[in-house]
Amino acid sequence: MSTERIYNFSAGPSVLPLPVLEQAAAEMTNYRGSGMSVMEMSHRSKVYIGIFEETKADLKRIMGIPDTHEILFMQGGATIQFSAVPMNLIGKTGMADYAVTGNFSELAMKEARKYGEVHIACSSEDKNHTYIPTQENIDVSPDASYFHYCANNTIFGTEWKYVPETDGVPLVCDMSSNILSVPVDVSKYGLIYAGAQKNMAPAGTAVIIVDKSLLGNEHPLTPKLLSYKVMADSDSMHNTPACYTIYMLGLVLKWLDTQGGVEGMEKIKSAKAKLLYDVLDDSKMFFGCAEKASRSDMNVTFRTGYEEIDDRFVKEAKQAGFENLKGHRVVGGMRASIYNAMPTEGVAKLAAFMRDFESRNM
Amino acid sequence: MSTERIYNFSAGPSVLPLPVLEQAAAEMTNYRGSGMSVMEMSHRSKVYIGIFEETKADLKRIMGIPDTHEILFMQGGATIQFSAVPMNLIGKTGMADYAVTGNFSELAMKEARKYGEVHIACSSEDKNHTYIPTQENIDVSPDASYFHYCANNTIFGTEWKYVPETDGVPLVCDMSSNILSVPVDVSKYGLIYAGAQKNMAPAGTAVIIVDKSLLGNEHPLTPKLLSYKVMADSDSMHNTPACYTIYMLGLVLKWLDTQGGVEGMEKIKSAKAKLLYDVLDDSKMFFGCAEKASRSDMNVTFRTGYEEIDDRFVKEAKQAGFENLKGHRVVGGMRASIYNAMPTEGVAKLAAFMRDFESRNM
Repeated sequence: MSTERIYNFSAGPSVLPLPVLEQAAAEMTNYRGSGMSVMEMSHRSKVYIGIFEETKADLKRIMGIPDTHEILFMQGGATIQFSAVPMNLIGKTGMADYAVTGNFSELAMKEARKYGEVHIACSSEDKNHTYIPTQENIDVSPDASYFHYCANNTIFGTEWKYVPETDGVPLVCDMSSNILSVPVDVSKYGLIYAGAQKNMAPAGTAVIIVDKSLLGNEHPLTPKLLSYKVMADSDSMHNTPACYTIYMLGLVLKWLDTQGGVEGMEKIKSAKAKLLYDVLDDSKMFFGCAEKASRSDMNVTFRTGYEEIDDRFVKEAKQAGFENLKGHRVVGGMRASIYNAMPTEGVAKLAAFMRDFESRNM
Repeated sequence: MSTERIYNFSAGPSVLPLPVLEQAAAEMTNYRGSGMSVMEMSHRSKVYIGIFEETKADLKRIMGIPDTHEILFMQGGATIQFSAVPMNLIGKTGMADYAVTGNFSELAMKEARKYGEVHIACSSEDKNHTYIPTQENIDVSPDASYFHYCANNTIFGTEWKYVPETDGVPLVCDMSSNILSVPVDVSKYGLIYAGAQKNMAPAGTAVIIVDKSLLGNEHPLTPKLLSYKVMADSDSMHNTPACYTIYMLGLVLKWLDTQGGVEGMEKIKSAKAKLLYDVLDDSKMFFGCAEKASRSDMNVTFRTGYEEIDDRFVKEAKQAGFENLKGHRVVGGMRASIYNAMPTEGVAKLAAFMRDFESRNM
């Protein structure tokens, strides 16, 4: 049985920092002299509340979250937020704007239609979501309760490089796949949400950062646990939260500090992405699936144009220790997800492997 | 820093089997030669699907779940099921029966009122939930969509010792705090649900066992992720499930096999509970909070009648390595939660400590 770790390019759940996993293993049966695993702690115990509050404080500090906003931890990933966002927020005017730039933003938009009127403010469907629309192409509704977009599209490999202007309509953003990779001016947002399993922690919690002034207008049929107000009033402890996942997030945040926080990570992730995009730009075999101006630094999508060569690449890469490079079935080709925890070394080795593969096969 | 583990009598999250924690720690950075942590695996990868399917198969085997029923894993603990149950099931007739025998069954009942008419079929509120009503005291509505009860009341320390007769009305049961402690005839139930963090795994998932014939009648505003039909059709993978929690459940189920499954556990847990109830029955200082016929084998509630002595007991017990014995604020006194993973040794030592405390203080 191999004891070596592979390079895991999975789109999520995805790689976690090795020191974080090692610490979790070391603390598994006895957390810092408590005589218990974090998994075994009452969520209302002093020791667990300590972990919980420190994690919240670290997230607040690292992201620069202002006091106007509350941090919530909710279960159900980002997907349950596709329902929770409109249930909590669409009632103000009865309608909301959605930018459709990929699979998940489309799912969010469709779910919102259950709860109110939805206006598609922009869409990249005309070119199979290979680009992010520019500000001039966004049709903002002044009477929308909110404007929803997805900051990074994992399947298509595109990323918003700017914050849309919405003339005072609250911005709601799904940051599941690029949160903590870049500084964000949280004060510009009414609500940010993100599933944990890409840049934050294992699957099992979502982080919601919500402007407190938006709380308290939920639909009467909103399940109690999906009410942002109930969750804010109970500090995310209306019931037992996903305690261990939140602990893991805490460890990841401490690790992020060692990388220079979000400012440091922005440099690291840009350099990592450049390693792969340089290969694509130089290559006569591989080409990127997304338009250059909209390329994601988290998910690099590419292909050769020949399914058989794509398959061979994925197979040989796997044998060389690069896992999960097959693209999503909707796009095909290849996808390298290079989230925060993917070491630069892994990306550099993949870039070298791509160049070598090309030289062997052209 | 102490390396010793304490005896953790927490009502949930609660103690897990030490061999399970040790195995999780050993597999943390590299699961069985995969080169990855289970936390890092794509939920759609072959290796993770293997873990997932084995866990489901083990649960089906251990609980004897018939093919008429589907196993679902959903996030949000048991509490989100307080909403999901009526959203999915109350529409058939527009009303449901609820047995109110404690805090959580009352919360479930109140939440259901959002979605339909609720009839209280029985209640133990007249005696502060110190007992479980008998069959003769249940007023079943023939036109109810379902009959909901909570099998074990953690706060009050009572447990249903029989399955209510409902004349064909589907039984819905919250088994969060006694699932897997006793054999259950699943075929009698329309739906069973249980949060993981007592007898199954760390917090972060709930198990739902649902009769497939009940699927497909959900309220149109049901969030997609709370639709049992959507979850059944996608084998609980409409989105990323709480992968690691499900893996932990898998490890716990393998451990349960070493204890003789639910049949073996029934003997073990009965013997453990008897150790403490014998102390209470013999004592001139401690008395049980629940009526004898309704005593829970999972949560033993007791007190001295003197707040000052209760406080001293909890404090001295803590110094002796028995943690989390303070009763819930609603009931006061003490509570020893002795779920499946609490070793018999820990309960025996607590029983001895109680006898010693009494002899020193009477």
